[in-house]
Amino acid sequence: MPIVLYDLAGADPALRFSPYCWRTRMALAHKGLAVETLPWRFTDKDAIAFSGQGRVPVLRDGETVVSDSWDIACYLEAHYPERGSLFGGVVGQAHARLVNAWADATMIGGIARLVVRDILDVVDPKDVAYFRASREQRFDATLEAVQADGRANRVAAFRDSLTPARLVLRAQPWLGGAAPSYADHILFGTLQWPRCVSRFELLAADDPVAAWQQRALDLYGGLGRSAVRV
Amino acid sequence: MPIVLYDLAGADPALRFSPYCWRTRMALAHKGLAVETLPWRFTDKDAIAFSGQGRVPVLRDGETVVSDSWDIACYLEAHYPERGSLFGGVVGQAHARLVNAWADATMIGGIARLVVRDILDVVDPKDVAYFRASREQRFDATLEAVQADGRANRVAAFRDSLTPARLVLRAQPWLGGAAPSYADHILFGTLQWPRCVSRFELLAADDPVAAWQQRALDLYGGLGRSAVRV
Repeated sequence: MPIVLYDLAGADPALRFSPYCWRTRMALAHKGLAVETLPWRFTDKDAIAFSGQGRVPVLRDGETVVSDSWDIACYLEAHYPERGSLFGGVVGQAHARLVNAWADATMIGGIARLVVRDILDVVDPKDVAYFRASREQRFDATLEAVQADGRANRVAAFRDSLTPARLVLRAQPWLGGAAPSYADHILFGTLQWPRCVSRFELLAADDPVAAWQQRALDLYGGLGRSAVRV
Repeated sequence: MPIVLYDLAGADPALRFSPYCWRTRMALAHKGLAVETLPWRFTDKDAIAFSGQGRVPVLRDGETVVSDSWDIACYLEAHYPERGSLFGGVVGQAHARLVNAWADATMIGGIARLVVRDILDVVDPKDVAYFRASREQRFDATLEAVQADGRANRVAAFRDSLTPARLVLRAQPWLGGAAPSYADHILFGTLQWPRCVSRFELLAADDPVAAWQQRALDLYGGLGRSAVRV
């Protein structure tokens, strides 16, 4: 029985755009594990009720159900230790948790402010009202105002927020060192989200992060590069 | 011949307050390596000219000279592999580089704005003019104005910038996982700097980072806790 992943999709079921699901997709590919991805929309709460919570990614591996991209990565590492390591050991795993927290605390909000109105154009019709209401409540502003303000005033600050990754990628090819690790998948998945839902250029062309992203798009047979984009 | 470390000191030679030297002090203690620390002041450029650059930490181990706290940590790990590991392997080391870059890019500037005027009161008399001029040029404002603005307007933002560490420390006791790693020494050293030069309370009392700092102060026989403070 293949591993099954509930994967956030747009109106186009081939458009997959969750930063967290992309982290899991890359982790699965890193491990060389086949996966059947099921398109899931924000309002499909019933479809993943068996996981005990309401967000994707949700992974089902035989009798095991795991949600939350970090917990899924830890599950894959523990359950498939003979395959390529995501973390390179327990300390590498502990350190990757800070990379994960950094991406979540710093990047997710910064990116949302630059593309959140574009997302509305790709979500499934049944998700439109939910998406607008929930995000406008979060930002206390209309999606149009958030994105306009973001692009007018917050691009430089977002790019600055990537300085830690930029400094690392000037010194080594991957966040994982000589080869990609789950730290790379965290950053890659986070950037794959805006790449799939928007044509807005988040990164300057000469940014080392952009050069790294191009390399990462080619990993695992071009898994990221072949993704459907808006 | 013991390892020698050139260590930033104030007018009181026992007051050691470089965030980078503290990272190295903790790394040496982690490895169980004895060290002779030599008090060094900002303007003692000649004393470390043999290192080919003008900043501390500078470590001399027999014939080997290494400067820059990150390079020193990597040297210690490579040269003393049989002692407790700082990184837990090459991937852990690669990931720690992002922790290092995050602390440098995010924390150093944020802390400086909260304590930079206090530092002026502890530096050696021969460093006073240099310190004021170089830092006022960097901030394009007087030290008094920078610190007053910081304490009035930037405390919350600084605390917010620690969110990644806070999220990690809610889930595990050390950034290194079950035991301290060099990632902990990076964060600890960075916070030891303001702790030694100022009585300003950077962290809220109920911050998980503050609880972690208390544990870290007790490491290695209380190396951090026994440090001279202003």
